[in-house]
Amino acid sequence: MTEYSVTILPENITVHVPRGTNLLMAAKKAGVYIESPCGGNGTCGKCAVKVVEGDPGAVDVSHLPDELKEMGLVPACNVKVNNDMIVEVPGFSRLTKHKVVLGTRKTRFGRENDYFSFNPFNPLAQKYYLQLEKPGSDDCINDLDRLKTAIYKKYGIENVEIRLSALRQLPQALRLGIWEITVTAVSIGKRTEIIRVEPGKSSRPAYGMAVDIGTTTVVVNLLDLEKGSIIGRSGTYNKQSVYGSDVISRIIYSEENSDGAGLLQKAVISTINQLTDELLETYSVKKDEIPVMVCAGNTVMMHLLMKVPASYLRLEPYVPGAVSFPEVKAAELGLSVNPDASVVTLPSIASYVGGDITAGVLATLINRSDKLTLFIDVGTNGELVLGNSDWLVTCSCSAGPAFEGSGISCGMRAMDGAIDWIDIDSKTLEVSCRTIGDTKPQGICGSGLIYSLSEMMDAGIIDRAGQILSQKSSRLREGPGGTEYVLVYAEDSGSGQDIVITEGDIKNLLRAKGAIFAGIRTMLQQLQLDVDYIDRVYIAGGFGNYINITDAINIGMLPDLPAEKYEYVGNSSIQGAMLVLLCREALLEAEELASRMTYIELSVGNLFMDEFISAVFIPHTDLSLFPSLIKE
Amino acid sequence: MTEYSVTILPENITVHVPRGTNLLMAAKKAGVYIESPCGGNGTCGKCAVKVVEGDPGAVDVSHLPDELKEMGLVPACNVKVNNDMIVEVPGFSRLTKHKVVLGTRKTRFGRENDYFSFNPFNPLAQKYYLQLEKPGSDDCINDLDRLKTAIYKKYGIENVEIRLSALRQLPQALRLGIWEITVTAVSIGKRTEIIRVEPGKSSRPAYGMAVDIGTTTVVVNLLDLEKGSIIGRSGTYNKQSVYGSDVISRIIYSEENSDGAGLLQKAVISTINQLTDELLETYSVKKDEIPVMVCAGNTVMMHLLMKVPASYLRLEPYVPGAVSFPEVKAAELGLSVNPDASVVTLPSIASYVGGDITAGVLATLINRSDKLTLFIDVGTNGELVLGNSDWLVTCSCSAGPAFEGSGISCGMRAMDGAIDWIDIDSKTLEVSCRTIGDTKPQGICGSGLIYSLSEMMDAGIIDRAGQILSQKSSRLREGPGGTEYVLVYAEDSGSGQDIVITEGDIKNLLRAKGAIFAGIRTMLQQLQLDVDYIDRVYIAGGFGNYINITDAINIGMLPDLPAEKYEYVGNSSIQGAMLVLLCREALLEAEELASRMTYIELSVGNLFMDEFISAVFIPHTDLSLFPSLIKE
Repeated sequence: MTEYSVTILPENITVHVPRGTNLLMAAKKAGVYIESPCGGNGTCGKCAVKVVEGDPGAVDVSHLPDELKEMGLVPACNVKVNNDMIVEVPGFSRLTKHKVVLGTRKTRFGRENDYFSFNPFNPLAQKYYLQLEKPGSDDCINDLDRLKTAIYKKYGIENVEIRLSALRQLPQALRLGIWEITVTAVSIGKRTEIIRVEPGKSSRPAYGMAVDIGTTTVVVNLLDLEKGSIIGRSGTYNKQSVYGSDVISRIIYSEENSDGAGLLQKAVISTINQLTDELLETYSVKKDEIPVMVCAGNTVMMHLLMKVPASYLRLEPYVPGAVSFPEVKAAELGLSVNPDASVVTLPSIASYVGGDITAGVLATLINRSDKLTLFIDVGTNGELVLGNSDWLVTCSCSAGPAFEGSGISCGMRAMDGAIDWIDIDSKTLEVSCRTIGDTKPQGICGSGLIYSLSEMMDAGIIDRAGQILSQKSSRLREGPGGTEYVLVYAEDSGSGQDIVITEGDIKNLLRAKGAIFAGIRTMLQQLQLDVDYIDRVYIAGGFGNYINITDAINIGMLPDLPAEKYEYVGNSSIQGAMLVLLCREALLEAEELASRMTYIELSVGNLFMDEFISAVFIPHTDLSLFPSLIKE
Repeated sequence: MTEYSVTILPENITVHVPRGTNLLMAAKKAGVYIESPCGGNGTCGKCAVKVVEGDPGAVDVSHLPDELKEMGLVPACNVKVNNDMIVEVPGFSRLTKHKVVLGTRKTRFGRENDYFSFNPFNPLAQKYYLQLEKPGSDDCINDLDRLKTAIYKKYGIENVEIRLSALRQLPQALRLGIWEITVTAVSIGKRTEIIRVEPGKSSRPAYGMAVDIGTTTVVVNLLDLEKGSIIGRSGTYNKQSVYGSDVISRIIYSEENSDGAGLLQKAVISTINQLTDELLETYSVKKDEIPVMVCAGNTVMMHLLMKVPASYLRLEPYVPGAVSFPEVKAAELGLSVNPDASVVTLPSIASYVGGDITAGVLATLINRSDKLTLFIDVGTNGELVLGNSDWLVTCSCSAGPAFEGSGISCGMRAMDGAIDWIDIDSKTLEVSCRTIGDTKPQGICGSGLIYSLSEMMDAGIIDRAGQILSQKSSRLREGPGGTEYVLVYAEDSGSGQDIVITEGDIKNLLRAKGAIFAGIRTMLQQLQLDVDYIDRVYIAGGFGNYINITDAINIGMLPDLPAEKYEYVGNSSIQGAMLVLLCREALLEAEELASRMTYIELSVGNLFMDEFISAVFIPHTDLSLFPSLIKE
């Protein structure tokens, strides 16, 4: 099969694709998502790109707006790759609206009072306005000690430190402000360090950035640290994705490529910078006004961010380089905020339970509650926490990225065009479905997959083992990968192809849901707890917001508990990061709770494997675990 | 007068000199000193340079070695500047042997026991060798926490911190060393931070650099922090000199030139780096092996090193930006040691009493002694300290750089060819003199100037007011700048010119010595102390090692106390820096003593001015202050 190279600008990412590949797909392979609301039918004119090098062939540009035609742009969906190409994708053709969970109103954080009823509002960075004594011949104390004395007198802060760059600003600022001055200081632990000096009384607050670094998506929130409010949110795909969709493949990339770790670090930093720049521009905040950034993410993401070798995370006995990373300055990582800004990370617990989970526990107050809580974060991986104020255990069940659409024939991420709900008529086997953004369906996302499995089971299309039963329906057919069920026919789909679920897809989904359920069961068994002891279940993560609990129980992914015990908590990773931004004590609490969490390594012993094998059924080999389903 | 520009490479410093200037002198103006043991007579062939651009004219190269001729080099002393030129001065033609006081055996530090009988040997940086438990499936604690636990168990150090770059080395080093490892950590105050990780057991010590940043000269000592010994010393001129010879002119340069402060910082950093590189190469030590550098210098030098605006130091009421500078990392300043090395500075006391004086007090233990001690540091400026363990006062008397040869017709720094001793026969008025390096005399240095004044007074050549008396001697004559006395005739000198002392020179010297004496008197008077209460006098600084006490008393520079009360302490600035390197407690002590030293601003009130006017005589208007001289 002849392959050609396609280089996407300005990212300068090159991919190799078979002859005849649609340019839309080639860009997707490069991790660049192009708008295509018409589903690549060449009718909407939204996917305009510029072919900088290589022959695009005869392209129908009739649907492009005139000004784009004049600029020499062509619709990507109409271009087939028949030679090496360099293609520029302009900003307006890029898919930016996507379902990255930015945190919803209905979250712990949104309620505002939960955490702050226990803790002071005491942000990591603050501005201090000071009126200093003017020096004279009888008082020629140096500028820095004059400042320190004033801070101590007014705010009671002793031994305040100062960054060299701030000290360089001090003499001029004091005289410009006629001995009135505003300093921005970051307080971590017992240390308070001035990182910025402004003459006079500043009318602007100190700002802070909270960052959730997911394997798939990165979210940045801009906060006003004076009011304690969220000013803006921004999210996008982690640019590391082009080096591998899951953490293991990225670690391997870092090992096998020259400066692989450097490239991965650059990719995530560039992702954060893009979001940061966007927020700063939108809300007219300057880089220098950001004195602190708090990052939460899984352990591998933190290693890659810090460029600490991650190899040993994937080798037995799975030892991280660190779980708590030292505070670093933004300039050391190349982050585009104040170069002296403190970059603080939430501590991880183990190789596969990261700071995002610590953040989640912190944000949901599980560690302070009497109630026995099960916390489930289903992202690219599945992490579980079980516990209360007395004890906390955690584990990671490698659920895999099936619920993010990976390894599923027509799977896709939860973005415009993704089927997120379906209904199958059990008599006719006809399908109704809904897509995100109400556009023509292009594929199926995680929640759509759960619905599909549940509906196919209820309609008798599959048996408990996930086997497709032979029935009289034109939607059931033999495909290249075995028996498949057609959800959407090509003529109705946005991709111009049938959207199907194959037996192979079903197996993958069963393994994914089985891993989560087996993880929960293993934890309970190790603690000799009955599932009914669980007082509540928190569902977190990008996935969590779109999941239907009833169907998730129906397929045996979640334990059979009353619906009222379940609660969505949204993106609790960024909520935890925001709490740390707004409350110094929260960082200490995060460290304390991370260090006392007991990590259960599921790969040790046979318990998990036994549970897993029993869980790769719908809902389970042991139906007694799902009494409400039996009742039905 | 036509002027031409001469650019010296590789420094790329351009100076403007009158037509016909000798290239040797042009280079000197650029702060580049070329070897000229024959005194510029064109006979030694040591001053070879390469004229890269411009016409050197017909140059006699007969005394150059053949290989230099072949390289197209010419003797700088034979080249007259008759057009713009670019000239490269190779390393072997540069004057590197000069009398920078590197610390002598007869110093406080050399005695070794004085300080360390009171304090533990407890260096700022140390290596820690550790054998870690190998992880297993039942112990998959992360590398960093494993390391922290091991350090705590073996060395009792809690909460050790780590630099990101060291953390990046950790996973690999642990496995390469098969769980044996050596870490280098810097301990300042209560913080201990790992900045380097090596696999296995390191056979090499941690090293440290002590730096004395003088206005005129910079000295760097390389220390073995395991043995506490000095490995090597190196000194040279402060490259900032080309921007002005004294601190005030450098501050003005920093203000009046675009990026003036940047250029000054670069100059001193490049000076330190040159010395550091030299030491590291000589003693086969790698940059990464230097985890800590301690710098002592005057307040202006510290501002220029840190690039903190120094303008307000020279404007009433003379307020420094800081006296204690924050610890910074070597990379922030561009110092060529380990990029993560801590750069620690000794705290200053006031605008004109710097960390070099704090270092001096620390090294001489004045602050711990019952004895009332007078400490005199005569460098480019003159600083005084008076006190004991109960109290300490200090002042700066702007003695000016006369004793370093500036503002004196034939003055020069204490380097090869400088007259440092003279004897005048009072009958014949004939002169015997000695030079440093026993070469032909080229000028007179500080100690030579004191001898000259004293001898001229004793020989009746000058009166008490410094007026040259008309006497019958061919050595006395009218010169362009008034009456002058010829010390060395042109035919005997290395410069080919008469070496003279003019009445103007004498006035400058009287002002310099008068300022020091007046400073001492002012301090004593403010404290209502008689001079006899002084138990001992410490003479410090580059100058101090070459001064003759009897003659210094004779001209009224030093108080008339018995010779046994005087003691040379050498370069106490670098001694103090070394103490801080070798003893953590010393840094705290330095901060404590600097903060409790009372600074007397001599420009406030009339006391100093009155004293100064009385002191511009030989030895003084009030002869009763010099009873031993009256006796003679």
